[in-house]
Amino acid sequence: MAWRFALMIDPVSDDDTRTDVADTFTAIDPAAPALTVGELSTQRGDGIFESIGVVDGHPQEVEAHLQRLAHSARICDLPAPNLAQWRAAVLFAAEHCGAGESVIKLILSRGVEHGPAPTAWVTAAEASDFTRARTDGIRVVTLDRGYTLDVPARAPWLLLGAKTLSYAVNMAALREARSRGADDAVFITSDGFVLEAPTATLIVRHGDTFLTPAPNAGILHGTTQLSLFEYLQAQGHTAGYSVIAAADLADADAAWLVSSVRLAAPIVAIDDVAVPHDVVLTAEMNRYLLSPRD
Amino acid sequence: MAWRFALMIDPVSDDDTRTDVADTFTAIDPAAPALTVGELSTQRGDGIFESIGVVDGHPQEVEAHLQRLAHSARICDLPAPNLAQWRAAVLFAAEHCGAGESVIKLILSRGVEHGPAPTAWVTAAEASDFTRARTDGIRVVTLDRGYTLDVPARAPWLLLGAKTLSYAVNMAALREARSRGADDAVFITSDGFVLEAPTATLIVRHGDTFLTPAPNAGILHGTTQLSLFEYLQAQGHTAGYSVIAAADLADADAAWLVSSVRLAAPIVAIDDVAVPHDVVLTAEMNRYLLSPRD
Repeated sequence: MAWRFALMIDPVSDDDTRTDVADTFTAIDPAAPALTVGELSTQRGDGIFESIGVVDGHPQEVEAHLQRLAHSARICDLPAPNLAQWRAAVLFAAEHCGAGESVIKLILSRGVEHGPAPTAWVTAAEASDFTRARTDGIRVVTLDRGYTLDVPARAPWLLLGAKTLSYAVNMAALREARSRGADDAVFITSDGFVLEAPTATLIVRHGDTFLTPAPNAGILHGTTQLSLFEYLQAQGHTAGYSVIAAADLADADAAWLVSSVRLAAPIVAIDDVAVPHDVVLTAEMNRYLLSPRD
Repeated sequence: MAWRFALMIDPVSDDDTRTDVADTFTAIDPAAPALTVGELSTQRGDGIFESIGVVDGHPQEVEAHLQRLAHSARICDLPAPNLAQWRAAVLFAAEHCGAGESVIKLILSRGVEHGPAPTAWVTAAEASDFTRARTDGIRVVTLDRGYTLDVPARAPWLLLGAKTLSYAVNMAALREARSRGADDAVFITSDGFVLEAPTATLIVRHGDTFLTPAPNAGILHGTTQLSLFEYLQAQGHTAGYSVIAAADLADADAAWLVSSVRLAAPIVAIDDVAVPHDVVLTAEMNRYLLSPRD
């Protein structure tokens, strides 16, 4: 991975109305030490993040990502991020992204242990080449997420709707998928409903209707999925939310995992069983997702 | 919190038999930047840790902690830690701890994104003063952990038996407890069995018998609990493991949360209902836990 840029942010409060936040940014060398060992992001995975796709220097769907950052902060009892400050940081980082595809990450950590304030930073790096996933597709396995569909609403301390830095389980699920000869995983509730992938949102197609699992406290609202639904609706398709039984997954006419950087990856096999996919529509989707979107 | 010491470790492989590992250690300023923003510990909570209590420079139960570090590494597919190297690092850090109570933390991270190797470090800091929790006791609330007792065994990718850096849920549970006027939480399975506290092990007493929830893939084996059970057995008590129903918690003659640094904290209320506690026995337990133990 090639770094492009990194920036430490001195977070100002949500109600700070200053218009020039440049003096709250400090550009840093992304390969040089910048965080102390007391960081709670590193000791406890205690913080939140966003990953924003960047195409030829244009950061995609910035507002949706900022809104989700604020949403995660509320769930995690972190100070509300000043979105104007974060927006400026994203645009500043995007200026360093150059041509091609990049990824900008926003990280808001609870700060240093017993410290007075959160720590925050933004990085920009060259994106991996996902051409193969986008064109040849991905094989997925279904993995039990361990809880039933009703758990997130009744146990908010499980933080199931927040994009926290505690992603060890998501990473373990990806390793499990690879150990089974697959590329990715789809999490299923213990009572048999589809949730999401460790780092992506699932979309299934039945005829002319595109569905994604109903976002509840247990599923992240997918920024790329939201954008893609707008596109599909503009093309005359129906797009919406539904409770999707895992047993119905294999019956779909097509299915994708969509995310901010890999974009739309068509699913070609579920638990080692080949499923239909649509080469032409997938190419259209990715053409749209690679076009500048706000 | 006052830092005492920090050390970056260049991890050597498990089968490396060198006897002098001093040149793999680099003492660092714990308050100065030491980690890069690419660290997967900070981006993904992707790594494991141990917290070791230190009394007057003596690190307690080092072997049990090292064994658990190795256990967590296996669950997380991390390279097996060279325990001789980690043992030497603990002893080196302990030399800087001085009088009173300290805590040594061991952290093994998956490393920098796309990097070649894990990163590892050890910190030593002055322990908080837990006198009040040890003597006056703690109020706890029970919180649903969201999964049933049988989940950890069938879904190892949930990493429920590993001490990972993805502790955001544990921290959220402590905040939830405090928002309810309590000091700590006890996690309960969705089907009503007692698990553990976010950062401690539960021990309940019925007459002359001391029980802790049966360690399975979903509960960390408590190093302090193991040591305390040896002590209690040496005193003629019975100590063992059991599946404990949450409904039976309030019927215990006494209950404690035990951990490496806070040691034995007697539970004085569960979900706002006062429960009996044993001042004399608790003092004996903590006297033992503060004595040098290997």
